[in-house]
Amino acid sequence: MKADNRGSAASRRDFLKQGTVAAIALPALSALGACGESKAVAAPPGGNTVASPPPPSPQQRADAMDAMHEKGIKAFPAPTSGKGNQLFEPHLDGRVKVYDLTAEEVQWEVEPGRKVKAWAYNGQVPGPQIRVREGDRVRVNLTNKLPESTSIHFHGLELPNDQDGVPFITQPPVKPGASFTYEFTVPNAGSHMYHSHHNAAMQVGLGLLGAFVVEPKRALPAQRADVDYVMVLNDGSHGYTLNGKGFPATEPIVCKHGQTVRLRFMNEGMMIHPMHLHGMHMTVIAKDGWDQPAPWKCDTLNIAPGERWDVLVKATNLGTWAFHCHILPHAESEHGMFGMVTALIVQPAVV
Amino acid sequence: MKADNRGSAASRRDFLKQGTVAAIALPALSALGACGESKAVAAPPGGNTVASPPPPSPQQRADAMDAMHEKGIKAFPAPTSGKGNQLFEPHLDGRVKVYDLTAEEVQWEVEPGRKVKAWAYNGQVPGPQIRVREGDRVRVNLTNKLPESTSIHFHGLELPNDQDGVPFITQPPVKPGASFTYEFTVPNAGSHMYHSHHNAAMQVGLGLLGAFVVEPKRALPAQRADVDYVMVLNDGSHGYTLNGKGFPATEPIVCKHGQTVRLRFMNEGMMIHPMHLHGMHMTVIAKDGWDQPAPWKCDTLNIAPGERWDVLVKATNLGTWAFHCHILPHAESEHGMFGMVTALIVQPAVV
Amino acid sequence: MKADNRGSAASRRDFLKQGTVAAIALPALSALGACGESKAVAAPPGGNTVASPPPPSPQQRADAMDAMHEKGIKAFPAPTSGKGNQLFEPHLDGRVKVYDLTAEEVQWEVEPGRKVKAWAYNGQVPGPQIRVREGDRVRVNLTNKLPESTSIHFHGLELPNDQDGVPFITQPPVKPGASFTYEFTVPNAGSHMYHSHHNAAMQVGLGLLGAFVVEPKRALPAQRADVDYVMVLNDGSHGYTLNGKGFPATEPIVCKHGQTVRLRFMNEGMMIHPMHLHGMHMTVIAKDGWDQPAPWKCDTLNIAPGERWDVLVKATNLGTWAFHCHILPHAESEHGMFGMVTALIVQPAVV
Repeated sequence: MKADNRGSAASRRDFLKQGTVAAIALPALSALGACGESKAVAAPPGGNTVASPPPPSPQQRADAMDAMHEKGIKAFPAPTSGKGNQLFEPHLDGRVKVYDLTAEEVQWEVEPGRKVKAWAYNGQVPGPQIRVREGDRVRVNLTNKLPESTSIHFHGLELPNDQDGVPFITQPPVKPGASFTYEFTVPNAGSHMYHSHHNAAMQVGLGLLGAFVVEPKRALPAQRADVDYVMVLNDGSHGYTLNGKGFPATEPIVCKHGQTVRLRFMNEGMMIHPMHLHGMHMTVIAKDGWDQPAPWKCDTLNIAPGERWDVLVKATNLGTWAFHCHILPHAESEHGMFGMVTALIVQPAVV
Repeated sequence: MKADNRGSAASRRDFLKQGTVAAIALPALSALGACGESKAVAAPPGGNTVASPPPPSPQQRADAMDAMHEKGIKAFPAPTSGKGNQLFEPHLDGRVKVYDLTAEEVQWEVEPGRKVKAWAYNGQVPGPQIRVREGDRVRVNLTNKLPESTSIHFHGLELPNDQDGVPFITQPPVKPGASFTYEFTVPNAGSHMYHSHHNAAMQVGLGLLGAFVVEPKRALPAQRADVDYVMVLNDGSHGYTLNGKGFPATEPIVCKHGQTVRLRFMNEGMMIHPMHLHGMHMTVIAKDGWDQPAPWKCDTLNIAPGERWDVLVKATNLGTWAFHCHILPHAESEHGMFGMVTALIVQPAVV
Repeated sequence: MKADNRGSAASRRDFLKQGTVAAIALPALSALGACGESKAVAAPPGGNTVASPPPPSPQQRADAMDAMHEKGIKAFPAPTSGKGNQLFEPHLDGRVKVYDLTAEEVQWEVEPGRKVKAWAYNGQVPGPQIRVREGDRVRVNLTNKLPESTSIHFHGLELPNDQDGVPFITQPPVKPGASFTYEFTVPNAGSHMYHSHHNAAMQVGLGLLGAFVVEPKRALPAQRADVDYVMVLNDGSHGYTLNGKGFPATEPIVCKHGQTVRLRFMNEGMMIHPMHLHGMHMTVIAKDGWDQPAPWKCDTLNIAPGERWDVLVKATNLGTWAFHCHILPHAESEHGMFGMVTALIVQPAVV
């Protein structure tokens, strides 16, 4: 059976069913598990008296800090409204796969309780994930419900010039209230993206972006994976996010021992993000959708804006593994982990 | 015939001759062409009356923003005074190729009307492009007309230590008004650079840098290109620039359909710049002048300070293709594209 | 004979013995040598008179700036108290190599006279260098004398989950005053690191980090080196440092002509650092401890946070070669070189 992130596989419900992941669970459902040490932190004495409370001892301060860290971990994966990067099922017009995209302003919950203004395709940040095959005929109908003009650039696809999505070079801008249709035969396989190419520093930062994955006509056996996961990095006005969410609202990647996980990193931000996987290495197989001639291994992969990197992870090491940007201020503060942090969870294989 | 950027090939005049590039032209010479949609924007009512003008409608605001974007595109390639990176013809002293470089302060027009203080070699930013062949004997006479000392480091060339250009380690600083002569036999091929190595964070940021390209004694057939273009990236006190200019004053790269373009990226700045080419991929063939053992493909190439990357582009896709740094705030604002943006223009091959 | 940085080889005393390095020496011991040009800079007239001194001439200003640059170079390698990254000799418990690490606050001298607050393992920044062999049994006893909790993550080692060092995921935090023991069989060779994984943006920035080098059971002949040098990059609250020190207190790397130097770059900071070697190229042989399938050459290697890169340098070029981060503001100011600057010194081979 093939588990992937095209909908239900790594869902929250499945995740919570798994008793094997003791350390990560909802606050309401779990005690912390064997690895957690939690001490009650005395609430500072309050009230209306004039006397100041005594300053906390070093031990109390350490406990208070640890409690914040623990709270974040225990909340993971924290429920929020809205889920981006959902697999986009096209409707068919003959043999043409048709995708209707509406760009509009929404409120987006990045972490529990933190809602931000987003400009989103179909209400999702990242926009819905387009997955097609090399040679497919694709039509994208863009409707602009934003207060400014926009356009879509299919980043990485080698399209005819008039489908490239750059206002005043290849097309007029798509005005507020207007629509525009792109149609093309998908030319080259790989992990690509679609995003605004108009006032893009702002529009992409606000969420007008999505994955555009093109499966090859014939996949190499070496590239077959049991789990195929797209991870879009961003660092715009929503903060440091993985697929539109910050830790603890990020999504764990779940697989079985012995499986192969394909990760497709896509950087839609303005900064590099060297993603570090604990416990296992990654084998780098493609850059910007093009096979690397000689795959190479690493545990920390530097992903620059606009880049896509595909890696394979052989899930040989059981457990819950931290997986985060190694620019530490993108991942942790005195208040605990946040932002670009998730986990790869390797479960025992079912016999 | 070989077209390159060693002088006339991609010149503005040639560029304007080409009727095939409808969308990009001088404001004075052109209507925008089929892809442009331009609406007159009502000037806000002015004057001395007390009443405030009504706020612009969303549509008016969108039109005003688009007009700024359109203006930049239509201006490209915008004329400015001064052109950097021009091919430097040496004079000969016997078999020695002699290059006289004078470092002095000039005014440099980065974009139309924006003149900045620059410290330049021979009045150019980047300095004149030195192109020699492996094994050539080269003499560089540096004259310092700056108000502070300087030196030249030949970045990437494996020279004898006393030619390395680091004050107080390999030579004395070259004082204001003084001269210094470097002379060496060119040891290793590739895309290299020359720049100040004294107070360099400031001096290189102000413009004391240039390309030093060494052609191999015997080029590999796989590396032969029809167009050979050096692109120097910078982000110092002049802003975000390609070859010393910001968009729309940057230079388009022009080639014919079917040709091979060799790009030599050189980062003389303080930040990474992931350069993204639309419509076609790049095959990476060399790093810092050294052949890559296994060329690999990408459409977004991350170039760090001090690095040089050589790529080949097979011009298989007709049209005008945006080509820009994908750190979007280096390339676009609400006012339109600026900074590190140019275009690769693939014209129909002449039959 | 094998010279490396596991203690005495590149020591300051050996360095000063070498008459071949004329340009770099202690102020007290040396005149500058042939390449230095030093002019006395007149001290501005002081005193209590009302009249202002005349402003310095451009020549005087240039001389004053150059004197500051010269002073830094002449001081290199400047003595400071404390040396990080010293080879850590374990004690043995049967066949288990035992390393006792105490995390505590110390004062750390980054450059002569500049002392900063550091959180250090065993009083060193970076912590003592652990060097083991694939398959070794290792025990690390961590004692926490800090005012907050901590933990150790063995970055790059593919350990059992409960040894991974992430509080609340794989273990409880190690409280102030408490201890924790890690024990494992070393699974994979390469250049790895150990560092705090609790409040790590702060704790690692303050110095809780070190190299964890795992030698392979069988080294490839192509990877044998005469000098094996670990260079840890950091950019936290101590400023820009190489192995915990800023220039001129950084350590030169010394070798003989014809030798092979292996450099192991490790970035424990928050920024990229493209390290540029003058005079020779580097052959990149490993990433994050994994052999590169096709070694490649460069002179400027971009190292992102969390990454480790191993390179070989064939010391074919005699002399003292600048070696620095090419983000120039990390290496030089108007006051001269500082921060991420050192030198590779290639001495004549002893016949």
